[in-house]
Amino acid sequence: MSKKEYINIEEIGEFGLIEEIKKLFPDKKRQETVVGIGDDAAVLNMNDQFLTLLSTDNLNEEVHFDLFYTPLKHLGFKSVSVSASDICAMNGEPIGVTVGIALDSRFTVPMVKEFYEGVRIACNKYGIDLIGGDTTGSYKGLFINTSIIGKVEKDRVTYRSGAGPGDLICVTGDLGGAYVGLLIMQREKEVHMEAPQATIKLEGYEYLIERLLKPEARLDVVRMLRELDVVPSAMIDISDGLASDLLHICAASNVGCVIYEEKFPIDPIVYRTALLEFNLNPTTVFLSGGEDYELLFTIPERYGDLFENHPDITIIGKILPKEEGTYMISKSGNKYELTAQGWDAFRKYLRENSNP
Amino acid sequence: MSKKEYINIEEIGEFGLIEEIKKLFPDKKRQETVVGIGDDAAVLNMNDQFLTLLSTDNLNEEVHFDLFYTPLKHLGFKSVSVSASDICAMNGEPIGVTVGIALDSRFTVPMVKEFYEGVRIACNKYGIDLIGGDTTGSYKGLFINTSIIGKVEKDRVTYRSGAGPGDLICVTGDLGGAYVGLLIMQREKEVHMEAPQATIKLEGYEYLIERLLKPEARLDVVRMLRELDVVPSAMIDISDGLASDLLHICAASNVGCVIYEEKFPIDPIVYRTALLEFNLNPTTVFLSGGEDYELLFTIPERYGDLFENHPDITIIGKILPKEEGTYMISKSGNKYELTAQGWDAFRKYLRENSNP
Repeated sequence: MSKKEYINIEEIGEFGLIEEIKKLFPDKKRQETVVGIGDDAAVLNMNDQFLTLLSTDNLNEEVHFDLFYTPLKHLGFKSVSVSASDICAMNGEPIGVTVGIALDSRFTVPMVKEFYEGVRIACNKYGIDLIGGDTTGSYKGLFINTSIIGKVEKDRVTYRSGAGPGDLICVTGDLGGAYVGLLIMQREKEVHMEAPQATIKLEGYEYLIERLLKPEARLDVVRMLRELDVVPSAMIDISDGLASDLLHICAASNVGCVIYEEKFPIDPIVYRTALLEFNLNPTTVFLSGGEDYELLFTIPERYGDLFENHPDITIIGKILPKEEGTYMISKSGNKYELTAQGWDAFRKYLRENSNP
Repeated sequence: MSKKEYINIEEIGEFGLIEEIKKLFPDKKRQETVVGIGDDAAVLNMNDQFLTLLSTDNLNEEVHFDLFYTPLKHLGFKSVSVSASDICAMNGEPIGVTVGIALDSRFTVPMVKEFYEGVRIACNKYGIDLIGGDTTGSYKGLFINTSIIGKVEKDRVTYRSGAGPGDLICVTGDLGGAYVGLLIMQREKEVHMEAPQATIKLEGYEYLIERLLKPEARLDVVRMLRELDVVPSAMIDISDGLASDLLHICAASNVGCVIYEEKFPIDPIVYRTALLEFNLNPTTVFLSGGEDYELLFTIPERYGDLFENHPDITIIGKILPKEEGTYMISKSGNKYELTAQGWDAFRKYLRENSNP
């Protein structure tokens, strides 16, 4: 145990800070509390049949989104999706969401209604209710907080901690699109700042921009898993980046892993744009992009056939005993250790904005 | 129905804005949803025995608190109290709370730990767990969001809407202290700004400052009501000010009311400080002060004897048929209509900070 006293938040990062906070709360006070801090959502036992799930998320202007290229309706949709994704990551069904906003004086009633129109579209999509919120002033900036309640059958709840050696590592959809979409938007913003008359060119990038601005929680996958009668051994939603989130599963499950570069589901437009326009290795984008809100889960090997040629799920690797480490095998057969260079918006932001 | 399209948020205020948002969500999507927006907490039916309660609150720097005179530990405590108070207002028992913070670069690890130490003390006090949160960066300022989950027996849930003519209007504790505490702190801040060497004088004001900085949710009253086997007909916590919150009950219950100035529980130090140091009518402070987080509830007349000389509960008036209006009878016997000049932090803030 280190005795070091950390002072700078940047030094320990968001996850380190959460660990420090957790230490202050060693005991459970309520028998209902199954899991408090540390998974995608809190898990409460309030019922014989179901577990109750609760998760909360902040979306802050200039940290998580830029209103220059984020329409308010999309932002409302994304706020709900990000929260619903946390419930999906527990293999649960979302029920109701609260959406609180803190607004500065730029905002008007029509703007707020546009934001909540996006909230409404997302609620309809996931079949959930808006059940509350708080509307307050802010000194500067738009701050959004969502809290979502959901439920999951006791024998279907899926934590980060259940992966065992031999389990297959699966990912839904494709990854990296949201990050490349962000790069596109940042590039166009810079062009606009230098030449406000210039036309913003987004043709051909629609998929990337939609991945950034309008991510969808994979409730469809949760429902499909139920229909297939498959319970993943571990699950997380990919918000920080595949490598970071897979390492979360490995740490919580006390296991290692291997993933294979040749299996990575990367959309051709993501691949091409990353490589040709931003000179980025598509594999790096896949591993560290983040914000795609796809699901990463592990399943016992016997279910492998179900997903072998699935259009929407890709098996990218395998869980190993802990002592074998956590690594990727590249297309050329080399072995690389996985590192969590995720989209740690928090750390990055503090670094860029801390006083010298 | 007015066809007017509102543009300025200031013009319609927080409550008007919430009404506009509610219009976008006319239907319930989930059978679990009993009450969505519009009471102190959302009410969900996820269980045969209990109803599940969920409430969310924002506390924003420079709008809801000033770090000049708010110790972080007190702020952590208050964040949880404000949330727990919403569950109490539904006659429920809190179970777990999530506390999310957005921090700018002023904050250090010890500061965050001090804040969560206050969260811990409050969790211990109410016997609840910290079950989650989100730790993010902010461009400028400290933003706190709390979401709390609780439960209440189906035959004990108390809405704002159940008050009927003849019911007695009860208030817990005493009111106005938090507001006068705020005035004291603002005065001392001004003194400090003008003369940083001057000593800040807080002796004799301890009660007022504690009311401002360390309000407690009245879970003790909720538990006492259970022991007495009394279910209030309507309840709300007093965050905006007694007049504003009583008018919320009257509107939701479709009734009128009369309250008697001579009954108002005002602590002598609140009375004296308001009148002598700030030249404020103590009755105005009582009616409009806000932020005391006491409970306001109505009970059928037959329970009146239980609270007639109660040390902690005061009967201040009576519910009337709607057509008789909502008013106060002054000590001199005059009749004054009640108006909601509550502590609408939001509106006030926007007014003071909107662009000309």
